[in-house]
Amino acid sequence: MEKIAIQKAETGITGLDMMLRGGFPEARTTLITGGPGTGKTIFCSQFLHHGATEEGEKTVYLSLDETKPQFFEEMLTFGWDFKKLEQERLFTFIDASDVRRIPEQAFEKRSVGSLPVSGKELARARLIDNIFKTLEGGRSIDKFIGDLGAQRIVLDSMSGLTFRFTEAWEKRQAILDIMEALNDIGATCLITSEAISVGEERQVQPEEYLSQGVINLQTLKNGERAVRILKMRGTEVDSVPRPYKIVETGIEVYADQNIYQT
Amino acid sequence: MEKIAIQKAETGITGLDMMLRGGFPEARTTLITGGPGTGKTIFCSQFLHHGATEEGEKTVYLSLDETKPQFFEEMLTFGWDFKKLEQERLFTFIDASDVRRIPEQAFEKRSVGSLPVSGKELARARLIDNIFKTLEGGRSIDKFIGDLGAQRIVLDSMSGLTFRFTEAWEKRQAILDIMEALNDIGATCLITSEAISVGEERQVQPEEYLSQGVINLQTLKNGERAVRILKMRGTEVDSVPRPYKIVETGIEVYADQNIYQT
Amino acid sequence: MEKIAIQKAETGITGLDMMLRGGFPEARTTLITGGPGTGKTIFCSQFLHHGATEEGEKTVYLSLDETKPQFFEEMLTFGWDFKKLEQERLFTFIDASDVRRIPEQAFEKRSVGSLPVSGKELARARLIDNIFKTLEGGRSIDKFIGDLGAQRIVLDSMSGLTFRFTEAWEKRQAILDIMEALNDIGATCLITSEAISVGEERQVQPEEYLSQGVINLQTLKNGERAVRILKMRGTEVDSVPRPYKIVETGIEVYADQNIYQT
Amino acid sequence: MEKIAIQKAETGITGLDMMLRGGFPEARTTLITGGPGTGKTIFCSQFLHHGATEEGEKTVYLSLDETKPQFFEEMLTFGWDFKKLEQERLFTFIDASDVRRIPEQAFEKRSVGSLPVSGKELARARLIDNIFKTLEGGRSIDKFIGDLGAQRIVLDSMSGLTFRFTEAWEKRQAILDIMEALNDIGATCLITSEAISVGEERQVQPEEYLSQGVINLQTLKNGERAVRILKMRGTEVDSVPRPYKIVETGIEVYADQNIYQT
Amino acid sequence: MEKIAIQKAETGITGLDMMLRGGFPEARTTLITGGPGTGKTIFCSQFLHHGATEEGEKTVYLSLDETKPQFFEEMLTFGWDFKKLEQERLFTFIDASDVRRIPEQAFEKRSVGSLPVSGKELARARLIDNIFKTLEGGRSIDKFIGDLGAQRIVLDSMSGLTFRFTEAWEKRQAILDIMEALNDIGATCLITSEAISVGEERQVQPEEYLSQGVINLQTLKNGERAVRILKMRGTEVDSVPRPYKIVETGIEVYADQNIYQT
Amino acid sequence: MEKIAIQKAETGITGLDMMLRGGFPEARTTLITGGPGTGKTIFCSQFLHHGATEEGEKTVYLSLDETKPQFFEEMLTFGWDFKKLEQERLFTFIDASDVRRIPEQAFEKRSVGSLPVSGKELARARLIDNIFKTLEGGRSIDKFIGDLGAQRIVLDSMSGLTFRFTEAWEKRQAILDIMEALNDIGATCLITSEAISVGEERQVQPEEYLSQGVINLQTLKNGERAVRILKMRGTEVDSVPRPYKIVETGIEVYADQNIYQT
Repeated sequence: MEKIAIQKAETGITGLDMMLRGGFPEARTTLITGGPGTGKTIFCSQFLHHGATEEGEKTVYLSLDETKPQFFEEMLTFGWDFKKLEQERLFTFIDASDVRRIPEQAFEKRSVGSLPVSGKELARARLIDNIFKTLEGGRSIDKFIGDLGAQRIVLDSMSGLTFRFTEAWEKRQAILDIMEALNDIGATCLITSEAISVGEERQVQPEEYLSQGVINLQTLKNGERAVRILKMRGTEVDSVPRPYKIVETGIEVYADQNIYQT
Repeated sequence: MEKIAIQKAETGITGLDMMLRGGFPEARTTLITGGPGTGKTIFCSQFLHHGATEEGEKTVYLSLDETKPQFFEEMLTFGWDFKKLEQERLFTFIDASDVRRIPEQAFEKRSVGSLPVSGKELARARLIDNIFKTLEGGRSIDKFIGDLGAQRIVLDSMSGLTFRFTEAWEKRQAILDIMEALNDIGATCLITSEAISVGEERQVQPEEYLSQGVINLQTLKNGERAVRILKMRGTEVDSVPRPYKIVETGIEVYADQNIYQT
Repeated sequence: MEKIAIQKAETGITGLDMMLRGGFPEARTTLITGGPGTGKTIFCSQFLHHGATEEGEKTVYLSLDETKPQFFEEMLTFGWDFKKLEQERLFTFIDASDVRRIPEQAFEKRSVGSLPVSGKELARARLIDNIFKTLEGGRSIDKFIGDLGAQRIVLDSMSGLTFRFTEAWEKRQAILDIMEALNDIGATCLITSEAISVGEERQVQPEEYLSQGVINLQTLKNGERAVRILKMRGTEVDSVPRPYKIVETGIEVYADQNIYQT
Repeated sequence: MEKIAIQKAETGITGLDMMLRGGFPEARTTLITGGPGTGKTIFCSQFLHHGATEEGEKTVYLSLDETKPQFFEEMLTFGWDFKKLEQERLFTFIDASDVRRIPEQAFEKRSVGSLPVSGKELARARLIDNIFKTLEGGRSIDKFIGDLGAQRIVLDSMSGLTFRFTEAWEKRQAILDIMEALNDIGATCLITSEAISVGEERQVQPEEYLSQGVINLQTLKNGERAVRILKMRGTEVDSVPRPYKIVETGIEVYADQNIYQT
Repeated sequence: MEKIAIQKAETGITGLDMMLRGGFPEARTTLITGGPGTGKTIFCSQFLHHGATEEGEKTVYLSLDETKPQFFEEMLTFGWDFKKLEQERLFTFIDASDVRRIPEQAFEKRSVGSLPVSGKELARARLIDNIFKTLEGGRSIDKFIGDLGAQRIVLDSMSGLTFRFTEAWEKRQAILDIMEALNDIGATCLITSEAISVGEERQVQPEEYLSQGVINLQTLKNGERAVRILKMRGTEVDSVPRPYKIVETGIEVYADQNIYQT
Repeated sequence: MEKIAIQKAETGITGLDMMLRGGFPEARTTLITGGPGTGKTIFCSQFLHHGATEEGEKTVYLSLDETKPQFFEEMLTFGWDFKKLEQERLFTFIDASDVRRIPEQAFEKRSVGSLPVSGKELARARLIDNIFKTLEGGRSIDKFIGDLGAQRIVLDSMSGLTFRFTEAWEKRQAILDIMEALNDIGATCLITSEAISVGEERQVQPEEYLSQGVINLQTLKNGERAVRILKMRGTEVDSVPRPYKIVETGIEVYADQNIYQT
């Protein structure tokens, strides 16, 4: 018997790769949580851009909140030309923002077709399906991504998907469904999640327990920023919070500096 | 490939323009949050006044809480003569305070006309419509503003619109509807939002995640004031909280001073 | 174009008039919030007494919680003889405490008469009407106060009016109705409001956003008291919290002292 | 016109009478709030005992939680022989603990007799009646106390009466009903109330706003005790928190000492 | 008239008997509250063991959570042989854990038999009865304990009984019913209760107000333990928190040491 | 009479065995609580691995959240070859993640078959049964484990089982059912539980009171980790929080170091 090393996918964020001992575990899903303005979208896009340009990997950005032109424009300010990557077939933008247009009835209807499940169960299933299976003109996304051979996928943000579920257990179920759908694809995935509290006394959110990895981005009271690896299954990491900045080339993590004196 | 610079709309608040590296991103919507008495309305009016007098831009103030005479009188105390700007066709005041007179039934009625959507969905749609499309004697506001060619729009306050939605998901949907309606117009927009908590342990509000930019105004325990850019998509900004004052010429931000020792 | 100065109504509380740069803005409504025992009623009565004795103004005290004999007796301990002012027709006490005797049905009944509005809407309207329009033997209060020519009005306390509304949006609507009813009269008005939290981490109450001015009275842990102008539309004020005392001549504010070291 | 001095009822607790400038305002109702074990019952009994033995006043203890034998035994440990006072007709113990035996139906029944009020309104009225009007073999308590000529009354505790009302507005109404019933008697009254939070960040309870006076008893983290006059209408008092002890002769307040350094 | 001294039941915990000035008041009920692992069961068992072995008193342990074999085994680790005491007829273990097997219907059924009380009232009554009256083969526990002549009784834990009541007022009623049932027996009783919060800012639980005595056990952040007498009617006690340890002979309180510097 | 020593099952985590004075009490159930990323699964697996490899004990891992391949892969990174142990019949992995696929109806259905119990009671019973009795092709797990002679069992995580119960009392009942089912097997058991709050002011969770032992794992603000034995019935332990690390050989506890200065 001998120990095996889990394959890593480099993030392209230098200091972070040091904290992660090489990158994200491949073919796994990591949650990126943080308050407003902490740079979650930039973080994820930098990960995609690095994979596409440095590793020649196929990448996918599944957007719940932004449109493609907005995304392209914002990323260009960091010098990341996703339009060009799209033309080179290294990047695919999937606009899933339509999910919020699904009328409420779908969440209440008692029975649909002849499926012997309760209305709510179905509605949730259909919601997830709407995103993962049927958005691209009838083709299923998983098949689409299978054909594409995507190796890096970002879902931004999960909160845009789950906010409609008011019961805690339903939300938890939906989160599990989403993670399972992503895991089945076999790519290295990032999911962003909006933090509900941003102070020192952080409230744990259920998705943190359901993820294989969790990274928290935080803006401190004085405007400084800190990144912290809360959880990373299957690999030893640096769990100390480290400072980071959003500069004109993206995110920079200072892995040898401390936020709190020790 | 080369990096592009996003166009900026100068705010006219000197120190703030430094923090923003020139002003607000053009054709985008920024949220101004803050407790009572932090000067949200003054902040937004100064932005409009600067655009109208210095740039000759058409400006619109969409008011949920105040009447036109109140607004005119208050702004005159800072030396801003919006009445004159109105006569010069550089400023339009839209009084949307009637929205709170819409009877509750509209929010409960099961079906209206023959539209195959649920009652609540419709009610929300109608509410937004009431403000954005039908307030000016049957004309639609977007067309009205289109004809006007407005370049700066302020909606003060969003809370006056959304307080009627009791379910979290409905409120979120309404916020998205409002932002989308504003974005479609193509102007540089500010929306004010009432903070629910004002202490150090700030509670995040959903609209902060749904906005492209968020600026927080805060009155500290000792009476001092601090402005902080929480989020600004598409442009690098100064995220350190800076002191500001409300003086007789409006708001002054001291971009080279610190609130917290670092 | 030139700047205009808003007219001020002197409060008669020396230090406070300095903080307010002369007094309350005339013909506006200011909210006085504070915990139990902070002197809200004394504060408001001193304002009325000053107006009646020093300026010869007509004054009105609209009471939700106290009876006239109680009020007269308590105010006499500060040397304020409101009974005499009543005889001189400079003061009117309106006992609205009966509002809490209105049976609950009024808040639930589906339809009353033939008005095509929902039950709850009607009930709220009727409640406000009961206070502002029909308490004095069928005469409407606004007409009554119009005839009287009241220049200073105190409503003590709003909480006594709004506690029956359990939904947040209903409470907000009721607060707006009350403020509008007062504003229509054209006098300088004060409304007291009970603070729900009294610690350092103050919770914002909706009425603070809906008022043109807000003053907070606070008793600190060590028994000292602090007054703070949270908001005052249309006029520059001193936003630093200042100490005050309740002495035998009423309230004294020490406008040149600090509560917190700066 | 001249200032009048409100009559005071000496408490018999030396330091407290200094803080109160003589004692409680006569014919008024004061609320005694505090956590478990702060000595609320001892405090109130000392007030009754002093009135009966030093002033020869008639006193009444209205008990919601304790039986007469328990009360007699506990008070004897402080040397207060209420049994003897009862024999001398200076003290009356009214056991109202039966109120918790009133079955729930009374709180739900739609209509009783032919009274045209809603069920809940009636139930509350009846509850208060059960205590104040009909407990002593059909005689009404107010008439009974009128005949007796009681000058000091203690109701211990209000929480034992109001805990059955689940809606905030119902509880507030019940508190007002109780206070009004006591005030109508014309005696100097104390009502005890259980504090819901006992830490530094005290939560305000509605009864504090509805009382003419409020005294808070607190046990600090280190076991020391502090008494604080939060509110006392109609009289100037010492609002600084002062230390107190429960010793073998009852409560002792050290009115010249400080809890917090100033 | 002379002061009487309340009889005390020695606890056998040396330092605690000093804090209590001799022990628990006889024939009264004291509440033992504390977080998980603070030693509530050890505390109570030590009290029973001391009474049985040192005073030859009959003792009863009424268990809601543990079985007899578990209890016997755990107590033996402290050298307390309750099995032997059982054989000597000085100890009785009553296993009431079956109460959680009572199906929910009992809590909802509208009417049972012909009793003219509401369903919920009955259910609560029956629950208490199930424990106190009918568990031992049809014999009533109170008669059983009467025959036995028990002088020390422990009920561990009340939370195991009351958790089924979801309404606050129902829980309070149930707590009162339990305490009354115990008081009627005439023994010195301890009831354990699970603390809901364990930090410095303790939340008061209703049972603390309804008990004649309350002792709080706490594990501090650094692993140290503190015992504090929050309340003890009818006797002067030491209210300062004191350190304690769980050692191999049971609980040891250090009554001359301080937890907090004074 | 003499004191007996409870048998201990060594954890294989050196420092922890010192804190536990030898290991976990045999044939008992201990709860492992902690925030995301504190290493709960690693902790439990190390306990199983030690038992299988060092003591030759049969071990079982009952998984609610992870699949067998994921588990095998993650554990290999610590050098623990559970696949080999499985082949040696020293380890059994039971995948109970299907429990979240049970449709909601089971939780709502009024009556199933002819059992005279309420729907919810049945649903809960069935849920627990689904896991403990019927998952392995119709065989009951308890019989299965009986045949196997398992001596160490881990259930990871309880939260994955109980999140569906929304009422507090139902959740408590389910927790008791689970613990009883495990205790009946007679093995030394660990159950993991997700902490809801992770700050200094820890909120107590009901399962902590219902367990015989509780160990808390915590990641501090600065990234350091602390393990603390909150409760351990039947054995004296070290209750001081101690630092631990997750290294490449698993968890290491530093039992002679302190987290907080004393």
